[in-house]
Amino acid sequence: MTDVPVTEEGSEGARIRWLISEKDGAPTFLMRHFTVEAGGFTPYHNYNWEHEVYVLEGQGKVRYEGREERIQPGDVILLPPGKKHQFQAGSETLKFICLVPK
Amino acid sequence: MTDVPVTEEGSEGARIRWLISEKDGAPTFLMRHFTVEAGGFTPYHNYNWEHEVYVLEGQGKVRYEGREERIQPGDVILLPPGKKHQFQAGSETLKFICLVPK
Repeated sequence: MTDVPVTEEGSEGARIRWLISEKDGAPTFLMRHFTVEAGGFTPYHNYNWEHEVYVLEGQGKVRYEGREERIQPGDVILLPPGKKHQFQAGSETLKFICLVPK
Repeated sequence: MTDVPVTEEGSEGARIRWLISEKDGAPTFLMRHFTVEAGGFTPYHNYNWEHEVYVLEGQGKVRYEGREERIQPGDVILLPPGKKHQFQAGSETLKFICLVPK
């Protein structure tokens, strides 16, 4: 379980770590951990499947469908399939887990 | 999102809060938050579907299939379908999220 940089265009200072992957034999959904350094962001993109997010540490914003919302530890976000979204760290490192269907 | 006691037999000092439920329109999987008070435990039971757990706070043990493992914040547990399991809090309140397929 190693952090690797998110290399997709439109990303900066973001790393991903697979906590539960297909290799672990997860039947239905997968768990990843994201670290976004202060001032960094994940790509503003969408997928045809949902994301379920739980914020662990730090402060930042989630941007989706033209809205921006502040996020903090304990916040939960259900991003429906097909909605463009981006996570932005504020002045501290943002950490969250993000689950997706297999 | 309110904590409600886990009333299933074999449970003590455990509360559940649904973070993402079917009512939220989650297509594939659901997110719950568990709080287990010091010395408390969830039922030793199994289901025909997997559980994916991320430990948030506290200390304790997960017991499954005759094994017991200590757990602490940041630990991740994939419980395969059909495996009996139980979460036990140690001397402090244990908090974790647990996701299940819909």
